[in-house]
Order: sequence, then structure tokens, then C-alpha cells
Amino acid sequence: MNNFTFHNPTKIIFGKGSIAELSSLLKPYKKILMTYGGGSIKKNGVYEQVLKALSDCTVIEFSGIEANPQYSTCMKAVRIAKDENVDFILSVGGGSVLDATKFIAAAVKWPGEEPWDFIRDSLELRDALPLGCVLTLPATGSESNPNAVISRAETGEKLAVIDDHVFPRFSILDPETTYTLPERQIANGIVDTFVHVMEQYITYPVNAPLQDRFAESILITLIEEGPKAMEQPRDYNTRANLMWAATLALNTLLSRGVPGDWSTHQIGHELTALYDIDHARTLAIFLPAVLKHQKKAKSAKLVQYGRRVWGLSGEDEDKLADEAIAKTVDFFQSLGVPVSLSDVDLTPADVTNIAKAHKKRGSALGEHKNIGAEEIEEIVQLAA
Amino acid sequence: MNNFTFHNPTKIIFGKGSIAELSSLLKPYKKILMTYGGGSIKKNGVYEQVLKALSDCTVIEFSGIEANPQYSTCMKAVRIAKDENVDFILSVGGGSVLDATKFIAAAVKWPGEEPWDFIRDSLELRDALPLGCVLTLPATGSESNPNAVISRAETGEKLAVIDDHVFPRFSILDPETTYTLPERQIANGIVDTFVHVMEQYITYPVNAPLQDRFAESILITLIEEGPKAMEQPRDYNTRANLMWAATLALNTLLSRGVPGDWSTHQIGHELTALYDIDHARTLAIFLPAVLKHQKKAKSAKLVQYGRRVWGLSGEDEDKLADEAIAKTVDFFQSLGVPVSLSDVDLTPADVTNIAKAHKKRGSALGEHKNIGAEEIEEIVQLAA
Repeated sequence: MNNFTFHNPTKIIFGKGSIAELSSLLKPYKKILMTYGGGSIKKNGVYEQVLKALSDCTVIEFSGIEANPQYSTCMKAVRIAKDENVDFILSVGGGSVLDATKFIAAAVKWPGEEPWDFIRDSLELRDALPLGCVLTLPATGSESNPNAVISRAETGEKLAVIDDHVFPRFSILDPETTYTLPERQIANGIVDTFVHVMEQYITYPVNAPLQDRFAESILITLIEEGPKAMEQPRDYNTRANLMWAATLALNTLLSRGVPGDWSTHQIGHELTALYDIDHARTLAIFLPAVLKHQKKAKSAKLVQYGRRVWGLSGEDEDKLADEAIAKTVDFFQSLGVPVSLSDVDLTPADVTNIAKAHKKRGSALGEHKNIGAEEIEEIVQLAA
Repeated sequence: MNNFTFHNPTKIIFGKGSIAELSSLLKPYKKILMTYGGGSIKKNGVYEQVLKALSDCTVIEFSGIEANPQYSTCMKAVRIAKDENVDFILSVGGGSVLDATKFIAAAVKWPGEEPWDFIRDSLELRDALPLGCVLTLPATGSESNPNAVISRAETGEKLAVIDDHVFPRFSILDPETTYTLPERQIANGIVDTFVHVMEQYITYPVNAPLQDRFAESILITLIEEGPKAMEQPRDYNTRANLMWAATLALNTLLSRGVPGDWSTHQIGHELTALYDIDHARTLAIFLPAVLKHQKKAKSAKLVQYGRRVWGLSGEDEDKLADEAIAKTVDFFQSLGVPVSLSDVDLTPADVTNIAKAHKKRGSALGEHKNIGAEEIEEIVQLAA
């Protein structure tokens, strides 16, 4: 096992009716900036529940945060937060709203002229406004981690900030808020969660059996609960199990002491930047290709995954690895997500910019740092 | 799944060489009270490593904290902490030293005359001195939870304080510090960890499959790594895996959203109070008896445990439950711990005080609150 530090200070309040806890959680703050997206929270009752819980607070609303949140949108909120002198930001929505909120919280306190600097150059933050969230879409794990991914249309960049200052102080997870999600978003959330786990698990063994089994626990839960969620959107326990799985998949626990391979996310981000394809769908397209390309290096873990998660048997390890990848593809397809470029009407020729963008950006990807521009081109071909 | 709150602010620094991190972790503090036990840390090099890392701090030492730490011992440290005006307490040792340290940290800030009041009457704390730990014995999970168990010889009490104020600010876990532990303490630690998981897992199903699988992950890890640790005390990864398993077994994660049954611990505490038997050994004696007594109520979970953790097969659920309990007993015996009262030269007649003490103390035990004094007597008979 590798050395590690684990520190996750976010308080999770989980369960039906938990939005009412907001009033006591926000008691110490005077002026709240409430951030949200396109207004779906006004249709499903979440908006009313939040405002009711905040009836004793001064609340300023900032809406219109898009999926794959844009730097320009965030900067509008930064100006409002500064002008209004807010002392807390409350995100109400999914991972995009929360990622934007984290960036806004950091940018408000950033001493430089241009907050994009700290994300582009991975500069350490000194401070951020305190923030919390009411989560309405289980997927990104943003509710319990220090990560935010922000896009910048004018440069075609999609980059991550990872800094302990932007851990939410609290996150409220009420599974009932997810009942009204469109099927596509539920499927995306399951895929996103699944791939988060795979990227912390399918690398090479470092004798960390508990981390492995926790990863397998989440994968099996997604495989069992995912189809139920698609069929019975209002089954509370199914929604609760998916929501808790999504949080634990990326709350920094699984990755402690083990290597990680975030190449699927990094290649996928480029596809979203180019063609605005749903984040999770880019993962479903590229994960199988990455696994095929890195099959030899990931062989031991692919075999273990095939046996323990998919119940495969046999001794031919190459065949087991192939079958495990095929099972993964089948699972994604059963959720109705695309698993190849052709599924989204693209060809490898359409996405040559992915390798180019990577070349410009630099360092090689993967747990062995062996995925450079050339390998990305090969992976793109495998994703055809 | 039940509603829950999850909040664990302790920072874990894990791995070989991590004691050196103390100097930066303690930079904000002026005067440190360093607590430890009987001096084993002076034999295994931990004492020197700690003092070296603290060379820039003012350190006051308080040694002699015993297993099942005593109120009277803690109160001596409280006086020193107050007289010396220390602003941080550093526990160096196992769960007993750390539990004592938590109690001391709370007692220093307790406004009343008699700090025993808050433990006896489960009063809420308002404050505690900040504390941290260097852990040398994986077992209790105290390094990452808000619990402390303190004994009071003159009244025969052994009681727990559970309060967020006593979460360690940080815990340093270096598996190499466990190389020199006596075999008996390693075995005890494995049993303690195993029983912690069982008490959060073997209750009744509430449709929380991820919590179940996380529990099973830890149990399987203990079954696989435990015997290796006994045979190869200096195998780093084995020790690391046990240490991380012990932390995750009782860091408040497994119990979120599910019922718990702490009757084995509560009955075991009485046995320690009466005959000073190692805490973990009391658990190995009473867990099988509790499971036998509650077999019907716990049937679904016992069957699942037998199948998933022990690989049992067959359809006869009563037989599966019996076999699962037998496997548990075999595992404890393989570690050389006693599994019955007769193994520690006692008879049920010797421990009639357990049921009496419970009767005096009050409320019924178990996830169904159906284990009263009479049932405890039956459990004691089953543990004969």
C-alpha cells in the first residue's frame, strides 16, 4: 500500500426531509448567495423547500449555471458575491452547479486579477468563501470532495481545480429530490459513478485489498441498483443507494494508498469541450477503449474485476480481461448510453483535436504515465 | 435505508515515516501534553521519533495510562493540563491511551466540579482541548471516531463518551510501529475490529446494500490478513491492511443508515470491569453467544454473512446461520483467543453480576431493544 493522507471534513446530511436542516446549518451566516441551474428545482419542489428553510436568512439568487459550467458564468456570480458581500454560497442542484459554486467561492477570495490563473496553473488557494450544497443529482461526488471542473468556451479548455479550501461545509442529500430526474440524467449519473470507481481501481495491484473490495462493493451496487432506478424512479431505497454510492465513489476514500488512472476523464473532457457531449457519455465512450488499449498493463486488475464484480470464471486471463471489458460495455448499453464515437455520430477523424489538445497541454496520462498524444490517437481509434 | 448524518473531520496521515509529519501538524500549538502508556513506545523507537518531530515544541509528558484507562489516572492528567495551561494533547499509543486522552481533553474544559458527570449522564460537551494521536495498535478505531471508553474502579463502571468535540484533529498511522506488538495484542486487535464490524452489520436488513458490502469487505480483509499478521509480524503490507481496516471499521462510516447492535460490547465491558479480562477477549466470548441467542431476529443477515464472507452454500437458512456462527468461533480460536467463559476459567455463576449491573443501569440492548437482564443471563449461559 502507498502512503497517503485522508481528510474529508464535509458533513453529510442524508435522507428524506433533510432539506429542512438548512435553517440550523446556515444560522451562523448573514447573507447567502444561492446558486442553481436552469430552473428544474422550481418544478420539483426543491426551490420551495430551500427557501422555506432559509426564511430567516438574506438570500440572493444566482441562476442559469449550465452543465459543464462556464468560466464566464461563474465570473458573473463572483461579481455579485463581492458586490453584495455574501458570506456563504449555497449550491442547489447537481455537480455542475456545485463545481461552479466551488470555483466562485475560491475566485471571490483570489487576490490576483484573473481567477482563471489558479485553475490553469494549478496554484494553491489561500482561502475560499464557505459553501454548502443541496444535491439533486447523484453522479459527480462533488458533494463530498475538493474538486471542481470548469470550462472556458473561448479557449476550448475544461480544467479541474482540486483544493481542500473548496470542500463543502455540508451537503444535504435527499434521495426524493432525484425522483423527477430525466432517465438520461439518471443513466449518466450511474455511468459517471461507475467510471469514477474504475479509474481508482483498474490500475495495478499494490496489495491494498480493502481499497479493492470497497471499489468492487460500489460497482456491484451500481450494477444491482442501476436498472431498478431506471425502471422504478420513485423507489426510495434504490435512489438512496445510488446517491450514497455516488458520494462514496469520489469522496477521496477509494483512492487512498493506491494508484489512479484518470485518462478516461481527461480524454472525455476534450470531447465535451469539442462537441458539448454529456460528460458521462464521453466516459462510456472512452473507458472501454482505454481498458482495451491498456489491457496488458491492467491485466491483473481486469481479471480480478471480471471475477469478483461480474462473476466470470475460467483461467485464461486474456479472455477474462476481454470478457470483463465486454461486460462493462453491455452494462453501459443497458442504460441507454453511447459506447462509441459512432454512437454519437462521430468518427476518429472528427476528434483529432483531442490528441492535439493533449499534446499542447503536456504530461502523459495513466497510472504509468505512458499515455501520450500518440496513444490517445490509438485510443480514439479503439473508440470508433 | 435510514436517515443519517455523517461527519468525520479527522485527518489521517498513513504510512511508513509519517511520524515526522508531527512537526508541521503541531506548529500552531505552544505547549503539548504528550500522553502514553506503560513505556513500550520507549522500546520500539516511537518515543524517539515523536520527540524528534516535536523538538521545536514545549512538551510535557504524562505516562502510565493503563489498558481500560481509569478515571483516576485521567484526572491526574487533567490537573497537569490545567496547571501547565497546555493547548494540545498528543496521544502516543493504542486505543486506551487515546480514549484516556479524549476524556482528559473534555474534562479540562468541563465547567462542572466532577467530569465523571458527563460520561455517566451522557451530557453534551461544549468544548474540549484539541487532540491528536500517533497510533501504535490497530484495534479500537478510536483514531478516527468521537468515542472514548473509561473505567472507574471504585464503582465498577466502564462507560463511553461519544461526542464530536473529541474527534482527533489528526491521527498518524505508521504500520511499522506495530511490528513489535506482542502476538496477543495483534490477535486482540483483529478480534476487536471484527466485532466492531459485526455489530454494525449483523442486525436486520434495511435495504442498504453498500453498507453491507463495505462491512463484508472489512471482514474478508481481516480473515485474509489476520493469519498473515500473526505469522509474519514484519510484513509491511499486511500490517498496513490491518491498520486501515481497523480505522474504517469504526470511523462511523459503516453504521450510517443502518441499525446497530452493541450488546456484545456492552456485556463485554461488564466482564472487563469484573475480572479485568482484555476487552477484545470479552468480545470473542460474548459475540457467538449473542448471535446464537438472537439467531432468529438476525437470521437474514447471518445467512448473507455466511454466504458472502465465509462462502457457505446451501438453502437451509437455519443451518447456514449455525455454520456462520461456527466459522466465526473457529476464526477467533485460530487467533488464539478464548471463545467461552470456561476458556478464561469462569462459569456463568461467576458472572451473575453482569445481568445485575445491567439491570441497575437500565435500558434494554440490541437493535430491537429486546435484550434485558433476563436475556443477558441466557446469553451468559450460552457463553459458558
